[in-house]
Amino acid sequence: MSKPIYVLSGPNLNLLGVREPEIYGYETLEDIRVLCEERAAVFGFEAVCRQSNHEGELVAWIQEARTEASAVVINAAAYTHTSVAILDALKMLKIPTVECHLSNPATREAFRHHSYLSPVVTGVVAGFGSNSYLLAVEAAARLVNAAAAKA
Amino acid sequence: MSKPIYVLSGPNLNLLGVREPEIYGYETLEDIRVLCEERAAVFGFEAVCRQSNHEGELVAWIQEARTEASAVVINAAAYTHTSVAILDALKMLKIPTVECHLSNPATREAFRHHSYLSPVVTGVVAGFGSNSYLLAVEAAARLVNAAAAKA
Amino acid sequence: MSKPIYVLSGPNLNLLGVREPEIYGYETLEDIRVLCEERAAVFGFEAVCRQSNHEGELVAWIQEARTEASAVVINAAAYTHTSVAILDALKMLKIPTVECHLSNPATREAFRHHSYLSPVVTGVVAGFGSNSYLLAVEAAARLVNAAAAKA
Amino acid sequence: MSKPIYVLSGPNLNLLGVREPEIYGYETLEDIRVLCEERAAVFGFEAVCRQSNHEGELVAWIQEARTEASAVVINAAAYTHTSVAILDALKMLKIPTVECHLSNPATREAFRHHSYLSPVVTGVVAGFGSNSYLLAVEAAARLVNAAAAKA
Amino acid sequence: MSKPIYVLSGPNLNLLGVREPEIYGYETLEDIRVLCEERAAVFGFEAVCRQSNHEGELVAWIQEARTEASAVVINAAAYTHTSVAILDALKMLKIPTVECHLSNPATREAFRHHSYLSPVVTGVVAGFGSNSYLLAVEAAARLVNAAAAKA
Amino acid sequence: MSKPIYVLSGPNLNLLGVREPEIYGYETLEDIRVLCEERAAVFGFEAVCRQSNHEGELVAWIQEARTEASAVVINAAAYTHTSVAILDALKMLKIPTVECHLSNPATREAFRHHSYLSPVVTGVVAGFGSNSYLLAVEAAARLVNAAAAKA
Amino acid sequence: MSKPIYVLSGPNLNLLGVREPEIYGYETLEDIRVLCEERAAVFGFEAVCRQSNHEGELVAWIQEARTEASAVVINAAAYTHTSVAILDALKMLKIPTVECHLSNPATREAFRHHSYLSPVVTGVVAGFGSNSYLLAVEAAARLVNAAAAKA
Amino acid sequence: MSKPIYVLSGPNLNLLGVREPEIYGYETLEDIRVLCEERAAVFGFEAVCRQSNHEGELVAWIQEARTEASAVVINAAAYTHTSVAILDALKMLKIPTVECHLSNPATREAFRHHSYLSPVVTGVVAGFGSNSYLLAVEAAARLVNAAAAKA
Amino acid sequence: MSKPIYVLSGPNLNLLGVREPEIYGYETLEDIRVLCEERAAVFGFEAVCRQSNHEGELVAWIQEARTEASAVVINAAAYTHTSVAILDALKMLKIPTVECHLSNPATREAFRHHSYLSPVVTGVVAGFGSNSYLLAVEAAARLVNAAAAKA
Amino acid sequence: MSKPIYVLSGPNLNLLGVREPEIYGYETLEDIRVLCEERAAVFGFEAVCRQSNHEGELVAWIQEARTEASAVVINAAAYTHTSVAILDALKMLKIPTVECHLSNPATREAFRHHSYLSPVVTGVVAGFGSNSYLLAVEAAARLVNAAAAKA
Amino acid sequence: MSKPIYVLSGPNLNLLGVREPEIYGYETLEDIRVLCEERAAVFGFEAVCRQSNHEGELVAWIQEARTEASAVVINAAAYTHTSVAILDALKMLKIPTVECHLSNPATREAFRHHSYLSPVVTGVVAGFGSNSYLLAVEAAARLVNAAAAKA
Amino acid sequence: MSKPIYVLSGPNLNLLGVREPEIYGYETLEDIRVLCEERAAVFGFEAVCRQSNHEGELVAWIQEARTEASAVVINAAAYTHTSVAILDALKMLKIPTVECHLSNPATREAFRHHSYLSPVVTGVVAGFGSNSYLLAVEAAARLVNAAAAKA
Repeated sequence: MSKPIYVLSGPNLNLLGVREPEIYGYETLEDIRVLCEERAAVFGFEAVCRQSNHEGELVAWIQEARTEASAVVINAAAYTHTSVAILDALKMLKIPTVECHLSNPATREAFRHHSYLSPVVTGVVAGFGSNSYLLAVEAAARLVNAAAAKA
Repeated sequence: MSKPIYVLSGPNLNLLGVREPEIYGYETLEDIRVLCEERAAVFGFEAVCRQSNHEGELVAWIQEARTEASAVVINAAAYTHTSVAILDALKMLKIPTVECHLSNPATREAFRHHSYLSPVVTGVVAGFGSNSYLLAVEAAARLVNAAAAKA
Repeated sequence: MSKPIYVLSGPNLNLLGVREPEIYGYETLEDIRVLCEERAAVFGFEAVCRQSNHEGELVAWIQEARTEASAVVINAAAYTHTSVAILDALKMLKIPTVECHLSNPATREAFRHHSYLSPVVTGVVAGFGSNSYLLAVEAAARLVNAAAAKA
Repeated sequence: MSKPIYVLSGPNLNLLGVREPEIYGYETLEDIRVLCEERAAVFGFEAVCRQSNHEGELVAWIQEARTEASAVVINAAAYTHTSVAILDALKMLKIPTVECHLSNPATREAFRHHSYLSPVVTGVVAGFGSNSYLLAVEAAARLVNAAAAKA
Repeated sequence: MSKPIYVLSGPNLNLLGVREPEIYGYETLEDIRVLCEERAAVFGFEAVCRQSNHEGELVAWIQEARTEASAVVINAAAYTHTSVAILDALKMLKIPTVECHLSNPATREAFRHHSYLSPVVTGVVAGFGSNSYLLAVEAAARLVNAAAAKA
Repeated sequence: MSKPIYVLSGPNLNLLGVREPEIYGYETLEDIRVLCEERAAVFGFEAVCRQSNHEGELVAWIQEARTEASAVVINAAAYTHTSVAILDALKMLKIPTVECHLSNPATREAFRHHSYLSPVVTGVVAGFGSNSYLLAVEAAARLVNAAAAKA
Repeated sequence: MSKPIYVLSGPNLNLLGVREPEIYGYETLEDIRVLCEERAAVFGFEAVCRQSNHEGELVAWIQEARTEASAVVINAAAYTHTSVAILDALKMLKIPTVECHLSNPATREAFRHHSYLSPVVTGVVAGFGSNSYLLAVEAAARLVNAAAAKA
Repeated sequence: MSKPIYVLSGPNLNLLGVREPEIYGYETLEDIRVLCEERAAVFGFEAVCRQSNHEGELVAWIQEARTEASAVVINAAAYTHTSVAILDALKMLKIPTVECHLSNPATREAFRHHSYLSPVVTGVVAGFGSNSYLLAVEAAARLVNAAAAKA
Repeated sequence: MSKPIYVLSGPNLNLLGVREPEIYGYETLEDIRVLCEERAAVFGFEAVCRQSNHEGELVAWIQEARTEASAVVINAAAYTHTSVAILDALKMLKIPTVECHLSNPATREAFRHHSYLSPVVTGVVAGFGSNSYLLAVEAAARLVNAAAAKA
Repeated sequence: MSKPIYVLSGPNLNLLGVREPEIYGYETLEDIRVLCEERAAVFGFEAVCRQSNHEGELVAWIQEARTEASAVVINAAAYTHTSVAILDALKMLKIPTVECHLSNPATREAFRHHSYLSPVVTGVVAGFGSNSYLLAVEAAARLVNAAAAKA
Repeated sequence: MSKPIYVLSGPNLNLLGVREPEIYGYETLEDIRVLCEERAAVFGFEAVCRQSNHEGELVAWIQEARTEASAVVINAAAYTHTSVAILDALKMLKIPTVECHLSNPATREAFRHHSYLSPVVTGVVAGFGSNSYLLAVEAAARLVNAAAAKA
Repeated sequence: MSKPIYVLSGPNLNLLGVREPEIYGYETLEDIRVLCEERAAVFGFEAVCRQSNHEGELVAWIQEARTEASAVVINAAAYTHTSVAILDALKMLKIPTVECHLSNPATREAFRHHSYLSPVVTGVVAGFGSNSYLLAVEAAARLVNAAAAKA
């Protein structure tokens, strides 16, 4: 059976849906996990969802994905803009990698317009809220399957 | 019935699948049109696909979309990096807009890392080949339907 | 009799007064044409008003103004910030040229703070809505008449 | 009766028309005052014209305008490019403010291409010699009257 | 009773007063804790003081402050200049936040002149040694009390 | 008896509490003077409060402080960002100097993120409204007393 | 027989030799066409000369050259400095491409020092008036013939 | 007996020799440890080798080295380019510190050309694969011995 | 008889020789005046020496020099780096102008490396203490005499 | 008889055709000399070809060309990007000067995109291998002959 | 027998140990030569040490090394930061090249932080005084021997 | 007797007075030598004047000045803007050094606004033609004598 798709979320995303839900929405990272699992299943994959506030822990999970996953979907949040360590970890992977963002970074502060990760991932999905995760999982799954079809 | 989703492609994309297909693949803009139409149909939309090498013509189509479309998916190609006119046209729309790219601009020349359009579109999908169009159409369709659900 | 004053408008200005008039006002480019004609007449000139979304068409009209107009008033809109071609066309003129803008570019996005055209026009009027056109026509007319008075 | 329009001129403009008039013209700041008064009168305003080489004095006059004037026309000359204090004073006003320049700054040294004042004024008129003042007074008068008409 | 004021210190501050005390002074982070507690008590608050070398741990404490603290005083030390994750965590708080520094960053290396945190905190106190903490605690306490007075 | 603490305020601060008090608050520079005097008295100092719109006058007062004051608290307002003359005057002092701001400059326009004064003052307090002055006076007083204690 | 060499000229070059010939010379684009044809003939090629003010039309001609020409000589004029679309079209060619300019861009305004096209053409000839075209045609012809000799 | 030389390695270096050894070589961080120990022994030192993906843990080890080591050799990998916290920790040491890199950063991406650590270490060795570690250990040992000889 | 040479000094120079003379020397601006007068006399000129902390006053003196002086020597101190108003005043002069500095600005803070005045003065003398004034007066005198000799 | 055309080559060009000829081609600087002489002869000129690794020697040859040559063709190689001395020497010439390069600098490292020489030469030929020299000699010869025809 | 290792030193290094030896140390370039020879001998190489103040001479020696040396160790001193000619010469070598520096450039002026040579050498050793040369010779020797072992 | 003052001139200054004397003046470097010798004699010094087009030769002369001269006056011409080697040589001197220029670099091309030498010389004299040399010699002589008086 196929290895799972890793869906990794970075710092502060653990507060999703918890902080002022009447304003930001009631959808939590847990809800996103369910959606990712369902969508991954459509393409024959499991989705393994994890969140950490620690750069080093995200690095470790990406390293783990090298042997344990079919693909990586990552919303590195703040680390998107500051982490060369995550870039280096992603660079070591040979499996498809997809960067995703809930909001569209180009509409936010100037320092969020640069992503250290974009140059080393396969593709990017941003701006569609939790749908960004779903579309990223689908993109990742299609990439894995396309690669398998070629091999 | 819903207005269609406009799927606009910019300069040089007319050569897709024509130029050295044995290297770049046989998939043409026509094939992408078919895929977009199918995917749009799943969500209850038509897809209207057009390509132009002229900045002014793309501006006119976006203006037309203001009253004739439910959403706009745009791969402005080279104009992504140089056209304030297209940015201004997109800014006038109140419907969802999705920027898409076949390749991942962050892996290309430095001048392609800046998009004039990103700050005014709802979201971005890049790096998945023709799948970028498909996912963008889906993202657009979901945004239209979500807005309709709220209204 | 004097040659007319050309009043040229760039991309997206055709939507003026059309898009959400209850918010942006009901004044159209057609209304501005009437106002320009009246004001030009006070100084003994006709006003020839044209709009295009095409950079190349604006270039052609400016070239035409070389032999057919007394002065050029131009609101190049988005092309203000990106068009060296329009700058080159304006540079070839020996007649007065006035750059005008409905809004004040200095209050908008950073990329609108630079105008390719400003260094080659006689003067600039910006920030007064349709009055910017009127004042620009007057400025152009006065410049033509002052030059005539000197000759 | 309406409050007057303040017409403020910055450093070195006191030498206008005095320094080598055979070259730079015989028109003095005094002549410009007369022209401004006449044009303001057409719209039902008085024009109060003052010049100072002192940044602090210009700040004080703008502060005074807060309660004593209908609008401010300002040619801050050199302070255009260096004075945050004048910017702050202008920002405190709720009346129309118009920046004007005798010459077109975009045709001069690079450091004159940036104006601290432009982002906080209503509009800008530049490049038409003493006519810049006249058109600026008219623009200011029209803005005051338009605001009065709305109120 | 009021929630406490969190006083958070970043990397390397654990060595305060330990490293060459005869040169840098004998005052430790423990001493600062005592001072903060005393000063907070004057305004009716407890001070909860913590230090970490881990960016992720500081993020977690700020998240915790969202529900458990009245205000946050933070000397993020090195992370002041590199951490978007801490910026994002602070941005989620609705309580007063005060950035403080023992030394004055403007007198140090160029890369310390930029703080990622300053744009999202209420205010900044820097350059007064351990007094920076005291004044920051007082500022935080006054902000909480002023907000309470208004409510 | 100790020399007083000079509390200097720069351009436009004379309008504090005067301009639209129902919005910006009724607290004037006069009120701040009273608060500074009271707080200075706690530490055994007088507070001498002055305001000027003139860079040269602020320079003169700082020069005067060289022999007549125990410390200088300065809110140079706009001159913070443009005045090397004030920087040079402050640099000549051997007494403690504290820069203060009512608002937090890091949350405002980009040109306010740079202070010419920060690299030559002892410390900075910003963002706490009139409390910034109070805390700055306290910081200055403590610095003077600490220096006296060492001597 | 060999395919022709395309000689493409960009915006405003249609005015060559027409505008003030007593100053700029009587040589028109038509004259340059004759010269190019003659020189091309020496090397056994036809020269197909075209001019357009439209970026999109130049893109189309370059696309056409992909199958219809032996080489492309292009003086893109203003579009040299602004057109990624022309760059992208040139990049798709496998035939020799030569950028040429009548004047030497390095002696003109700073924005003309950068050419989007230079990094994707085979070589550049600039600064020799109409001789730039001749030498460029010769360079192109030699490149085609050298490639043919190797094949 | 002398304190040991600390040899610290940063994020992702744990994968050395593990990832595709047939391409990148079979030499692991464990092998490097053995080599470092041998070389350190030649100069009378022990080598204590550690690796971490966590910035905070590297900070702690450097702090520990302040009292427990004779010198520090550090290959901070990705943190070289982003960590002010490690720079601050190194700055607190009075013992020799040597930065080393397996590859030559000047041949890699632009963001790797800047090292936060270089300005605070004694020296740098880069580009010689595992030999960089060996030479760095030797350099460190010589520096310690030279300092001891002087004392 | 010849008009005098104006020797103007900017902000904070009034403290020369007053502030800690045992360290900075006992030479005051008054002493420099004597030296300038003596040296000017050698070349048949009077020296008129003035100092001001006010930008506007320096502007006025330079304007006065237009008709009253043979040449201007100016040490604008801090205003060297910030005053476009003084640049504009100097630009209006047709007499020789010499910029001088006691210290060598190139050895000081980066913002002192740029002088607004250098591009509009005849020449510069810097770095020789009070001798900078003397040499500047001599240079000015020689320039006046050389111009007189040519006329 | 006409003075010769100087053809000067800069550092490392002496290795042309010597270093790995099977890869870089067997054409040496000597061969280029022959080609230049032949082509110059067609236009009635001698070609004097020299190469040096020394900036000062190239300066001397350009100075010599002032009186001894009809024109200068120069491939300054590395000095193109670093030598103001060669720029100054070229600036002193009144004869035509042509910069040439074997390869197209725009396709190489960023620091090769700037040429100190381009702004002072008549024109540039780059990217055509040894043909760059030939075309440059022809351009130079035509410029000399055209100038002679006008005189 | 193996070809020697070239050890090249650039401008001003001839004064090493000569200028104020009581301060900078008595170690001369001659002493370094002896140390290099000894260390090279350990690995079976001769060391050929040369110094020049002339960029062109260093270029020539590097060219000579192409055929006469096993490796090059170079301390280009000032030319490190300004010489593209030396970069080009080094680029032509296929043998190992090591850049070395007595001091650590990252601790010196900003313009010394950039090395033209680093991107084309195998590795860098800096900051260890004369030991930098020794370690660089060893690194070079090991690289030669490793290459030989592979061949 | 005192050691002489070295007066060094850089590239292309050998053409002074030779190239088009009717335009640039008949004054040669030889004439400047005479003037320098006379002026130096007034202060009891010999002047040793030399010119070179070679950076390395200028370095050698400055090194020689270390032991053979009382002071160095240097007009490094083009090398002012490009030579770190000359900067390093000057930095090694303990005698006064004066940078001089015939013209005022601030009025010329942007790349001439930066001098590598200014930060390491005692002072600068620029813009007074051959008088720059004379004043520089005088400045140097006064510095030597003042130092002697102190010793």
